[in-house]
Amino acid sequence: MTESSYEGRQDHIREWKTPEIETFRNIYSDREYEIRMETSEFSCVCPKTGLPDFATLVLTFVPAELCIELKSFKEYLLAYRNQGIFHENVVNKVTDDLVAAIRPRRLRLEGQFNNRGGIQTTVVREYESR
Amino acid sequence: MTESSYEGRQDHIREWKTPEIETFRNIYSDREYEIRMETSEFSCVCPKTGLPDFATLVLTFVPAELCIELKSFKEYLLAYRNQGIFHENVVNKVTDDLVAAIRPRRLRLEGQFNNRGGIQTTVVREYESR
Amino acid sequence: MTESSYEGRQDHIREWKTPEIETFRNIYSDREYEIRMETSEFSCVCPKTGLPDFATLVLTFVPAELCIELKSFKEYLLAYRNQGIFHENVVNKVTDDLVAAIRPRRLRLEGQFNNRGGIQTTVVREYESR
Amino acid sequence: MTESSYEGRQDHIREWKTPEIETFRNIYSDREYEIRMETSEFSCVCPKTGLPDFATLVLTFVPAELCIELKSFKEYLLAYRNQGIFHENVVNKVTDDLVAAIRPRRLRLEGQFNNRGGIQTTVVREYESR
Amino acid sequence: MTESSYEGRQDHIREWKTPEIETFRNIYSDREYEIRMETSEFSCVCPKTGLPDFATLVLTFVPAELCIELKSFKEYLLAYRNQGIFHENVVNKVTDDLVAAIRPRRLRLEGQFNNRGGIQTTVVREYESR
Amino acid sequence: MTESSYEGRQDHIREWKTPEIETFRNIYSDREYEIRMETSEFSCVCPKTGLPDFATLVLTFVPAELCIELKSFKEYLLAYRNQGIFHENVVNKVTDDLVAAIRPRRLRLEGQFNNRGGIQTTVVREYESR
Amino acid sequence: MTESSYEGRQDHIREWKTPEIETFRNIYSDREYEIRMETSEFSCVCPKTGLPDFATLVLTFVPAELCIELKSFKEYLLAYRNQGIFHENVVNKVTDDLVAAIRPRRLRLEGQFNNRGGIQTTVVREYESR
Amino acid sequence: MTESSYEGRQDHIREWKTPEIETFRNIYSDREYEIRMETSEFSCVCPKTGLPDFATLVLTFVPAELCIELKSFKEYLLAYRNQGIFHENVVNKVTDDLVAAIRPRRLRLEGQFNNRGGIQTTVVREYESR
Amino acid sequence: MTESSYEGRQDHIREWKTPEIETFRNIYSDREYEIRMETSEFSCVCPKTGLPDFATLVLTFVPAELCIELKSFKEYLLAYRNQGIFHENVVNKVTDDLVAAIRPRRLRLEGQFNNRGGIQTTVVREYESR
Amino acid sequence: MTESSYEGRQDHIREWKTPEIETFRNIYSDREYEIRMETSEFSCVCPKTGLPDFATLVLTFVPAELCIELKSFKEYLLAYRNQGIFHENVVNKVTDDLVAAIRPRRLRLEGQFNNRGGIQTTVVREYESR
Repeated sequence: MTESSYEGRQDHIREWKTPEIETFRNIYSDREYEIRMETSEFSCVCPKTGLPDFATLVLTFVPAELCIELKSFKEYLLAYRNQGIFHENVVNKVTDDLVAAIRPRRLRLEGQFNNRGGIQTTVVREYESR
Repeated sequence: MTESSYEGRQDHIREWKTPEIETFRNIYSDREYEIRMETSEFSCVCPKTGLPDFATLVLTFVPAELCIELKSFKEYLLAYRNQGIFHENVVNKVTDDLVAAIRPRRLRLEGQFNNRGGIQTTVVREYESR
Repeated sequence: MTESSYEGRQDHIREWKTPEIETFRNIYSDREYEIRMETSEFSCVCPKTGLPDFATLVLTFVPAELCIELKSFKEYLLAYRNQGIFHENVVNKVTDDLVAAIRPRRLRLEGQFNNRGGIQTTVVREYESR
Repeated sequence: MTESSYEGRQDHIREWKTPEIETFRNIYSDREYEIRMETSEFSCVCPKTGLPDFATLVLTFVPAELCIELKSFKEYLLAYRNQGIFHENVVNKVTDDLVAAIRPRRLRLEGQFNNRGGIQTTVVREYESR
Repeated sequence: MTESSYEGRQDHIREWKTPEIETFRNIYSDREYEIRMETSEFSCVCPKTGLPDFATLVLTFVPAELCIELKSFKEYLLAYRNQGIFHENVVNKVTDDLVAAIRPRRLRLEGQFNNRGGIQTTVVREYESR
Repeated sequence: MTESSYEGRQDHIREWKTPEIETFRNIYSDREYEIRMETSEFSCVCPKTGLPDFATLVLTFVPAELCIELKSFKEYLLAYRNQGIFHENVVNKVTDDLVAAIRPRRLRLEGQFNNRGGIQTTVVREYESR
Repeated sequence: MTESSYEGRQDHIREWKTPEIETFRNIYSDREYEIRMETSEFSCVCPKTGLPDFATLVLTFVPAELCIELKSFKEYLLAYRNQGIFHENVVNKVTDDLVAAIRPRRLRLEGQFNNRGGIQTTVVREYESR
Repeated sequence: MTESSYEGRQDHIREWKTPEIETFRNIYSDREYEIRMETSEFSCVCPKTGLPDFATLVLTFVPAELCIELKSFKEYLLAYRNQGIFHENVVNKVTDDLVAAIRPRRLRLEGQFNNRGGIQTTVVREYESR
Repeated sequence: MTESSYEGRQDHIREWKTPEIETFRNIYSDREYEIRMETSEFSCVCPKTGLPDFATLVLTFVPAELCIELKSFKEYLLAYRNQGIFHENVVNKVTDDLVAAIRPRRLRLEGQFNNRGGIQTTVVREYESR
Repeated sequence: MTESSYEGRQDHIREWKTPEIETFRNIYSDREYEIRMETSEFSCVCPKTGLPDFATLVLTFVPAELCIELKSFKEYLLAYRNQGIFHENVVNKVTDDLVAAIRPRRLRLEGQFNNRGGIQTTVVREYESR
């Protein structure tokens, strides 16, 4: 299989229908403050080898009207456990879904993936509302 | 019980009457300097499960005319020990109470809450007087 | 004894006559460079309990014409060993004395005081000559 | 052999034909995000002594249309394993090759070389497209 | 002996004739990049007590046309092993010598000297070409 | 109140009726193996001051026929949250209750209590069945 | 569902048919030496909640005639990724399977499971051939 | 003053009358368990220079009928704050006083004194009752 | 290629002719003392993939009549740089060669190999003369 | 110069006349206790290259009738600063001199020498009186 066929397989990731992330109303929305959530328990599947990949996700955001319901976010991440997806796409997809769900003032997502073949990869995406 | 009822329960937090924080006069109020207080002994209660939550609080401020009396601040924090309150609201409520008590030049409060279900949450609020 | 009487006891700190800090001529005064001195051996007395307090002091400064003679600075700090003085005042008093002694371009003093009652306190003062 | 002859030997490094670095299409090229790859398994040869040198490489870049194919990057680095090359030139050569291969928005490469004769050397190069 | 006589002894440091630092041509002088060299093996002598002093030196610079030949730099530093010299002067003297030898775009030298009498001293000098 | 009256208050701790610890059958009881459970979320109350105390508990045991049901153990520990009890007695009481509940081959409990007045206290109890 | 029904569900674990672990001949079987393998990428499922659990496994053994083929061991561990199994049983099951596969002189397996509800659990099993 | 006169000054340390250490009854004296107390706030005076010395004390003991009252132990240690005493004698004197006060089953005291002249000194004494 | 063919390729390792390790006479051979040498710069080749492997080697031995000449040991290790060899065999081969070269009283070699596929492998061999 | 000539140069080390180490009377000689002294400021010269070597020395001993006078020990170590001597011989020579000076119950000396050519060497000698 050639490299381009992998790309083909990954194009659909942007359209992939992930579970809804529940939210709750931010009762301090008149204050600007930051929330950071960190989990070392993210796992997905390598699209090339079919073997599991592991990552630590570090999410930082400044909420507007909505906060992220913690348990629902955990369940959202479970959808990736059997999904073949590249490191770069994990971070971009989760960011896009979170921005759509809570429309934050600012948001940053960092995915620190485990060492593969002697190389450790980290991907970082930042979002700022206009 | 639905999610919205939790929100309802938390709206009253902004009106909750907490103990007074005692202060003392800053004898170097003509100098600008920073005070940092850190405690790993904050505990409150999760409004959903009724189980205790634990956090490290890191307070940094630039005093104006008043400083925080340390023992009184410790007793103030004890009021949260049996209070059902979300992480986000802890940091915002304590910040609002401190700003009201000492009217500082600047103040920052960071609450680092213990891991729950594989996710560690931190909340940060910053205040600057105009 | 009321809180205000403690304040009264501390007002005199600004007038307290501490030992002179000896200096030596900076032979590179035509260069701008930074000197950092750190000691974990500062001790004073709590004015409320009469018990010893302990701190790490971190001094950073950009000298002008004068440098601090190390041994004399050590002896200067010994004057605090039996002095009842609040954390905030230690850092402000030492800063004022150092600025008077060496008239630096910039100076920063950080005092990291040991945990008391579950709370660790740090005080930072910065000075810049005009 | 004199110092200048070493320089002579190293001039050719800029012209040295290294293996091609494969790339794949960035499906999130409409987003600006950062990728960091770190390997502690880089080895080359000291041109003076013929003995192996070892380094940790830390690559950080913001992709434009192309990403780096991980396995191909690993094989690219293998070309240095038997190459006599100075620390400074390793970092500059790899940077130039990466910039040519993926034309990134920004790129930074840091090479942390192992201690030799009591001195540890690090080289850092940054690139920004105009 | 009075303090001023020590100063007298140190004035000559600016004129002290140290060994030449060898250089080699930077074949990437059309690129701006940074080189960092760190050694924990610097030793000199305290001019007051005659006892050895020890320091870690951290040198960071952006080369222009010339790089520092590593072995020659190591031998240059050996000249301080039996030299009575104050901490402040070590960092300023080495900086001046390096700037003269390689005329860099930028250079920074940090000397972290071992604890003496409970106080640890660090000296930092920065240079930028105009 | 004299010191002896505190002792009096603590004698009843050995008779204090704590919640039952649930267990489950060890399906590998024919193998000897060790289980370690560590929580940094233990809190009780100082019998002298009425203020909360905090500790990390580290439990290690070799099960016989029964294992500790994790959630029930957590609820058991909650019974101490409002109990006035000395550090030494916490560790001994919890050990006695665990030994009674699961009759292990071996068990060790370490309680690392937070610093009070500059002193950090740890208590360790070991049990071995005959 | 009562606690005892969980026990029922776990009894079958001892009979669960896991994939074969491949081995290779130890060409130094006349020497006694130790092999240690550590992976932070073990994942299984909690039989109560159906949510993923995560652990670091540390395996240490003294081989007799056979060594563990690394890739096959990795694939063996993948069989647990969707298996509901308690922490205690993971460590005992893997130990029994390894002992059966390579009949080592000695073997020790430690499973360090991630924090759940504020409690971190570790399980250790040791085997020695007679 | 010659070295032998220092020895003379220190002989009296064994006879020095220190404050009484208060105790309380060990209500678990039928169990064997260990108590560890650690403080980084010990200070005394160097008999040669008159300058303060600082140490971390780590006390470990197995109580018999009596435990150490924490606050009284803290006050006992204050008696050394202005006492000229060698490192070796601090550890031996405190050990002898503690053994006399609580007659423990076992006791160990470690004093880790701050670096002086580039040398860090630690003294350890162990006691076991027969 | 089947697994057994790899074994076949590795059998010859025991007969592989490596470079001689030079020694020097131990002038304190009438004293028993230990020497430890640690290098993080060992590299060999994986016989399966042909890709480089990396390890930290920690050698500890009690010399009898001969010590290891450091530079010669370094050159000896270079012979592995292009050799296909399994982790287990590296440690056993180097141990056998060292024992033959210096006939020590005791010797221990630990090879800590870099993570491959999420698993980090360490091999330890101990030797004791009779 | 051949290797054997280095050995010849080092034979004389056992006869080398080093400065006397002063002692003081142990006033707790009826107690068995341990003293540990650690310095990271040892320097000598490599007999092969003439370049300085650096080490951390960790001395642990149980005194009999005599203790080591700290300042005199420091001066004793200065005698090595310009001495060409191998790592193994440093540790053996200092041990022999200390045993002769204080006739301790037990003594252990560990010399941790700085990395040379990628290899870090540690030498440990233990002495026990009969």
